[in-house]
Amino acid sequence: MKSTNFQNTNTALIIVDVQKAFLDKDYPGIKRNNLDAEKVCGLILNKWRDSNLPVIHIRHSSIDPSSKLHESKPGFLFNDYVLPQTNETILTKHVNSGFIGTNLETLLKDQNIKRLVIVGMTTNHCISSTARMSGNLGYDTYVISDATAAYNTIGLDGKMIDCEVIYNTSLANLNEEFATILSSEELFSSL
Amino acid sequence: MKSTNFQNTNTALIIVDVQKAFLDKDYPGIKRNNLDAEKVCGLILNKWRDSNLPVIHIRHSSIDPSSKLHESKPGFLFNDYVLPQTNETILTKHVNSGFIGTNLETLLKDQNIKRLVIVGMTTNHCISSTARMSGNLGYDTYVISDATAAYNTIGLDGKMIDCEVIYNTSLANLNEEFATILSSEELFSSL
Repeated sequence: MKSTNFQNTNTALIIVDVQKAFLDKDYPGIKRNNLDAEKVCGLILNKWRDSNLPVIHIRHSSIDPSSKLHESKPGFLFNDYVLPQTNETILTKHVNSGFIGTNLETLLKDQNIKRLVIVGMTTNHCISSTARMSGNLGYDTYVISDATAAYNTIGLDGKMIDCEVIYNTSLANLNEEFATILSSEELFSSL
Repeated sequence: MKSTNFQNTNTALIIVDVQKAFLDKDYPGIKRNNLDAEKVCGLILNKWRDSNLPVIHIRHSSIDPSSKLHESKPGFLFNDYVLPQTNETILTKHVNSGFIGTNLETLLKDQNIKRLVIVGMTTNHCISSTARMSGNLGYDTYVISDATAAYNTIGLDGKMIDCEVIYNTSLANLNEEFATILSSEELFSSL
C-alpha cells in the first residue's frame, strides 16, 4: 500500500448512508455481503474521534414515500454504530452522490480539507458515485473495502448478479482511477 | 422498454471519449468487448444529425504526457466514425465525468436540454461517471449498451476481471438507478 499518514493531514471521514434500512440484510432473493460493514464504520469513526479529525455524516433521504430511506420510516435513522455526536456535521442528500444537492464541497473548502476517507453503503451506488466525484474534483480519496457492502443486483439479461461480484467490480473500477482502496486494517496501521 | 419518443424532446447526444487511443484493442492480457462500439456511435450520430437534434462531443485530454490520450498523441484524435462537424459542440475534459471541469451543465441549461443519450468509452470509467452525474443532476438519462465498451480490469486480489463482467456489472449498476439502458436497435425504433 501507499504510505500515508492520515493524522498529519486534515483528513475527513465521510460516512455515507449508514442507516437502519440496510439492516434488512436479506429479502427473498436479495443478499448483501460484508454484514459487519456498519460495525467497521463504527470502529473507524471512533478512531477519527480519538484523533480529533473531522467527521461528516451523510444520510440519504429518499423522495419516494414508499422507500425504507424516506424520512418518515425507521430505516432513515442512523445505524447505532455511527450515531453522530453534537459537534459533528450531518448532511442530507436526495440522490446518490454526496456532492450533489449538498454543501459538501463548500464545507471541505472552508475547512481546507483535501483528503477524504469514504465509508458506508452501498459500494456500487452511493459509495461509488461519491468516490468518483471526490476523485474527479481533485480530493485525495480513500475507500475502505470492509467498511462498505453491496447487494445482489439484476443484470440487463434479467439474471441476478451476486453481491460479491458487484462489490469486487465496483472497487476494481474505483481503484487507482478515482480512489485508493484500503482495508480497515491498513487504515488503522496509518493512524 | 419504456416508450420514449426522442424526437419530440430536445434530446442531446453526448459522445464521450470516442478517440483513436481506444483502437488499440488488445494489449497483452488486456482485452476489450464490443469492438463495434465506435461504429454504432457513428450510426447513432448520423441519426441525430438527420433528426436535427443537438450533438455534444466530449473528448478526454490526459494531463499525463505518457498517456495515449495526451493532446500530443495520435490517440487523442477523434475516431473517424464520430468526426465532429463544424456546427457541433466540442468539450474537452481532464477527468472522467463530462460534467467536471467543463461547461456541459451551462450548455444544457442554455439550450433547455433535459434528456441525454450517452454513448462512448469506457463503460466502467467515463461513461459510468458521466451517466451517474447526469442522473443525479436530474437529467432523463439513457445509455446505449452496444455503443459503449469496457476493458479487462485488475481486481483488488490481483486477478484480472473479464471485460464482459466489468461491462455487464457497470450497466446493471446504472440501470434504473441513474439511467435507462437501451440497445441501439431499441433507440432507433424510437427515432
